[in-house]
Amino acid sequence: MSEMNFASDNTAGIAPDILRALAGANDGFALGYGNDERSRDVERLFAHVFERDVAVFLVTTGTAANAIALAHVSPPWGAVLCHREAHAITDECGAPEFFGGGLRLIGLPGEACKLAPQTLQNALGDELWGGPHHVSPSALSLTQATEAGTIYRLDEIAALAALAHARGLAVHMDGARFANALVRLAVTPAEMTWKSGIDVLSLGATKGGAMAAEAIVFFDPARAASMAERRKRGGDLVSKHRFLAAQFAAFFAEDYWLTLARHANSLADRLAARLAASGCKPVWPVEANIVFVIMSKDRVTKLKNAGASFYVRRSLSLPAGIEIGADESLLRLVTSFATSENEVDRFVELACR
Amino acid sequence: MSEMNFASDNTAGIAPDILRALAGANDGFALGYGNDERSRDVERLFAHVFERDVAVFLVTTGTAANAIALAHVSPPWGAVLCHREAHAITDECGAPEFFGGGLRLIGLPGEACKLAPQTLQNALGDELWGGPHHVSPSALSLTQATEAGTIYRLDEIAALAALAHARGLAVHMDGARFANALVRLAVTPAEMTWKSGIDVLSLGATKGGAMAAEAIVFFDPARAASMAERRKRGGDLVSKHRFLAAQFAAFFAEDYWLTLARHANSLADRLAARLAASGCKPVWPVEANIVFVIMSKDRVTKLKNAGASFYVRRSLSLPAGIEIGADESLLRLVTSFATSENEVDRFVELACR
Amino acid sequence: MSEMNFASDNTAGIAPDILRALAGANDGFALGYGNDERSRDVERLFAHVFERDVAVFLVTTGTAANAIALAHVSPPWGAVLCHREAHAITDECGAPEFFGGGLRLIGLPGEACKLAPQTLQNALGDELWGGPHHVSPSALSLTQATEAGTIYRLDEIAALAALAHARGLAVHMDGARFANALVRLAVTPAEMTWKSGIDVLSLGATKGGAMAAEAIVFFDPARAASMAERRKRGGDLVSKHRFLAAQFAAFFAEDYWLTLARHANSLADRLAARLAASGCKPVWPVEANIVFVIMSKDRVTKLKNAGASFYVRRSLSLPAGIEIGADESLLRLVTSFATSENEVDRFVELACR
Amino acid sequence: MSEMNFASDNTAGIAPDILRALAGANDGFALGYGNDERSRDVERLFAHVFERDVAVFLVTTGTAANAIALAHVSPPWGAVLCHREAHAITDECGAPEFFGGGLRLIGLPGEACKLAPQTLQNALGDELWGGPHHVSPSALSLTQATEAGTIYRLDEIAALAALAHARGLAVHMDGARFANALVRLAVTPAEMTWKSGIDVLSLGATKGGAMAAEAIVFFDPARAASMAERRKRGGDLVSKHRFLAAQFAAFFAEDYWLTLARHANSLADRLAARLAASGCKPVWPVEANIVFVIMSKDRVTKLKNAGASFYVRRSLSLPAGIEIGADESLLRLVTSFATSENEVDRFVELACR
Repeated sequence: MSEMNFASDNTAGIAPDILRALAGANDGFALGYGNDERSRDVERLFAHVFERDVAVFLVTTGTAANAIALAHVSPPWGAVLCHREAHAITDECGAPEFFGGGLRLIGLPGEACKLAPQTLQNALGDELWGGPHHVSPSALSLTQATEAGTIYRLDEIAALAALAHARGLAVHMDGARFANALVRLAVTPAEMTWKSGIDVLSLGATKGGAMAAEAIVFFDPARAASMAERRKRGGDLVSKHRFLAAQFAAFFAEDYWLTLARHANSLADRLAARLAASGCKPVWPVEANIVFVIMSKDRVTKLKNAGASFYVRRSLSLPAGIEIGADESLLRLVTSFATSENEVDRFVELACR
Repeated sequence: MSEMNFASDNTAGIAPDILRALAGANDGFALGYGNDERSRDVERLFAHVFERDVAVFLVTTGTAANAIALAHVSPPWGAVLCHREAHAITDECGAPEFFGGGLRLIGLPGEACKLAPQTLQNALGDELWGGPHHVSPSALSLTQATEAGTIYRLDEIAALAALAHARGLAVHMDGARFANALVRLAVTPAEMTWKSGIDVLSLGATKGGAMAAEAIVFFDPARAASMAERRKRGGDLVSKHRFLAAQFAAFFAEDYWLTLARHANSLADRLAARLAASGCKPVWPVEANIVFVIMSKDRVTKLKNAGASFYVRRSLSLPAGIEIGADESLLRLVTSFATSENEVDRFVELACR
Repeated sequence: MSEMNFASDNTAGIAPDILRALAGANDGFALGYGNDERSRDVERLFAHVFERDVAVFLVTTGTAANAIALAHVSPPWGAVLCHREAHAITDECGAPEFFGGGLRLIGLPGEACKLAPQTLQNALGDELWGGPHHVSPSALSLTQATEAGTIYRLDEIAALAALAHARGLAVHMDGARFANALVRLAVTPAEMTWKSGIDVLSLGATKGGAMAAEAIVFFDPARAASMAERRKRGGDLVSKHRFLAAQFAAFFAEDYWLTLARHANSLADRLAARLAASGCKPVWPVEANIVFVIMSKDRVTKLKNAGASFYVRRSLSLPAGIEIGADESLLRLVTSFATSENEVDRFVELACR
Repeated sequence: MSEMNFASDNTAGIAPDILRALAGANDGFALGYGNDERSRDVERLFAHVFERDVAVFLVTTGTAANAIALAHVSPPWGAVLCHREAHAITDECGAPEFFGGGLRLIGLPGEACKLAPQTLQNALGDELWGGPHHVSPSALSLTQATEAGTIYRLDEIAALAALAHARGLAVHMDGARFANALVRLAVTPAEMTWKSGIDVLSLGATKGGAMAAEAIVFFDPARAASMAERRKRGGDLVSKHRFLAAQFAAFFAEDYWLTLARHANSLADRLAARLAASGCKPVWPVEANIVFVIMSKDRVTKLKNAGASFYVRRSLSLPAGIEIGADESLLRLVTSFATSENEVDRFVELACR
């Protein structure tokens, strides 16, 4: 694949320490399905990271993590409220509905892919809800960092969670880019989750540098009853589970995950700053590792021809007053732990010349 | 974990060439979700192995492979016939029913975990089948090698498949230990599958030496329409898909999979022969990498205390005349590519002294 | 229950001829589950009404009819497009999602609860659709008459159906108030359905005067394969099926259904005309048997106190420029075959005094 | 349909008082979906019949009642144990699996379609159960009267329920022929249900004389939380619900249901006695309204030709020593409230001449 890779953070490979950990875990025999020592250590590891007892279930995809988590906190007649551009509703081919026995996802609007408390309040207040005729709101799902590369502040999470809890909804966080948000906010994992009202977290390591490792974390372990059956039945209990555990062990070791996320974020900052300096200001504040910019279609073609890799997107969440012209495109540029300054600089040079 | 590991072939780690392949695939950026070059090569690779065009879908667990494959060839009101000790019905926590929208698994008896054609014929003929009141038989699932470590001969597969096809059933093979059967029969992958009437195969690499890599193979690619959606929606589309593809590439390269399987089988043979020589004859012919023997509970305790790892099982498929005494246990001993002669010999020495 | 009953057309009882038909069908023994003579006549009866061969499945609720019909024409990863105030999405507690294995309903906007072709075209064009990541549009569901009491003209249905068919979607009509629309348009059942592009129809008799009788009608009988299983499995195959068949026989006999619908419509017209004459103009044109008017909350209280029965609703589909004031309510007034002129007049007198 | 109708009790029509009740309930307007007075009285009515507070949900088919009840007391990874010839597993086309999100039905053997406590104990003890790999037993379903026309004594129900409760299973009774068992045992509804350990009951009125009326009864109302949603979503909430309520009101009034059941039972007794007197002894004790006898195929043909209506069945639950010869058939003869002595006598005369 070409240089100037901004298509997604999942186009990066495996971060060195994590690859080493896979090899390191390949030491003889170990019981399968999570009954090995490394796997048994996982909950302790997460308990340390999150500063409380947790129940943790590892899976290999973010879609599985989201779908299983949401299915576990919502009955089939429940409705899960999320931003209308949330990954769970736009990019998982109906996995939450499938795992949730036909639950409903309800997409709400919000600038920069963030839900405003007022929007949630209106949704909970205005709609027809409740049995027997109507589905009942059962969960709120927030993406941190969002699909726009923006992040919720702690007080925003807390305000949304409080509204949800007041109506009996569970609060889920899709943390596919959890670390990117964490290092930007400079808060603790505990603060960004259960201390702000999150009940269950999909914590992604894959986009952050793992090969394929995602965790479903319940901050009230009692709430995780029967999750083991749900995961197995979903086809998501990996047999050589030690290699999942090993990825997370390396991810967390010596704050490796934060180091990797800081790199990705800083490259996004560099990209944003240089584009802005060239008159190409990002559409939204760059708060994680994603930069959205509007460019002319000519420039897009030129970049593609030069080997740059990225997606052109549509968004329903643009800031007021911003519109994409007929001869323009909205580019999504994602950096990762593997992005180099050179790639960024070359891209900017091409894009803004 | 202790030596003398016979608990399962999934207690082994990653075979060296496959681990190397993971590192080798970690070369820069690659598009996710199967859109990279390695992934695009997978179907060609499988087409080569199976000597025909195939549609292939990689996943990370055997349960996902079985459940998705069966759901794809059976309507929700269908019944999948399998041996009553088949993994799909005993060990997948209802995954086929979940993926299949509530389909029904019907377990049939059969010595040595093999279905006899007459048993299938009786089942298809005797039961109440068909709508609107009854479920309709929709698929036959055969496990090769079986859970008893036995294998179907080509003519047995063909006879069962012919009966199934005559009634409109699809024929699925659960090939979690496909290679172990293949090298024992000394036939080609084509002969053991589509040439014998198999329509869809779950081909496992994990037990054979991969980290986590399973393939769903459709021998009529047209039959795989919408499988991509089904897999994604099941949470089973891995984002850094190149690492799945790389595992299979290494697995197949220079017949590595056959070499690994031959090792496992030969260690099972050694184990069986030595146990038999000591008066402890395996319950069933040892045709793959699994040995079942009956031992006194005292001996089981002694072996456990000495660090041996294995499972005590129950079976409904024992040969006529064989019974487990009150002070006896049925041991399942599984060898793998990683089993050493030393482990085998030490186990036998302890077991038969 | 009080007089002035405008809560719903399902608050009316059984129309006299249909009640008589229930008694008339109670003549001795008849095989169950649709194997009696009356039931076998149903398809011929519908074929006559719709002027072509059809496949027909009777059930007892409109929710079952809609959910089973939609599930049959959409895969689990499909999306069913409908108006955002359609009964299927607002009032069926997720039944289509449940029967459809987790399919998705997508609600589109449209004045007067009608979808405009442009809206459908935009939805099909603008959204991210298609596997593996996105759900795929699989069906369009139109309600005739709509929840606003408005109706689609034949050319509107045809235009919407053409757009849907061009993208491979099936076209479903929710005809809970089919007869009300039919008599208003003064067209044939064939014209309002398959001649305009409808593939499958939920035809309701209950609101029109039956006790509990709804039909799922496939205009291409081949498309109904396995519907018998789907209905049975949904718990919707009534054992003493002759009483379902008898309701439809009486419903259609001598155009009884049209007579009943004309009565309901004419009472709605009378109600609308008198309300308008008193300065209380209906919000939307009254085209079926539903009248929506805005009244002061004081007046609502007065009407309720006087024993009038109706629901206060919210709508997202109001005509441009119409708003409900803080001290006002939007009333939904539904007439039926059983509504009397006296009820209407008394209501208007109270409402407008 | 011919005389000599023994095909099923659902071939009978509507019992006179119940038909009258339908007409009687057709008095003006009534709110839909169970919000009318008659429907609100239903729980009081059932509470009176069962001598305790209950939660009651009316539906129109026995399949819906069973499937919804079982789905409500079993998680998707649960297993429902029942006799292998129980209606739920043989005749509902997988409805329990569908409503239960893919739960598993496990059919156990037992003479005369009855489960013996030892059989249940063995099943609970011997099988591999429990997560994450195995489904977990979640409910026991008993049919009273059974499909063989036999009945459980109170102590048998209590013994089975005690075993089930000791393992945390819910206990369901399929009471499609509840009244037939009740009058034979001469016990109270309370004694035959919650006093013997039943948690949830499908109480059928249809086979007993109603048009289409079945009740799901929870003896612990708290356990019924969200049942309203589950029923609606299943398409089983009838809009003109008063007509369902009216059927049950008439069914219970002045012990009409018991009178109807006594008639059916006594005709079955007469049929059995006369057949036995002619040398054609019923296969099982006739304890409800079903008689199973073995006859030569010649005689079956003669009876069919003479206009008799009945089903030839197969059974896996015959008494030891009883076998169906190659030229014989097993006949199921069902009587109902509408069966006449004349029909019975004519049948016997033909059968035994």
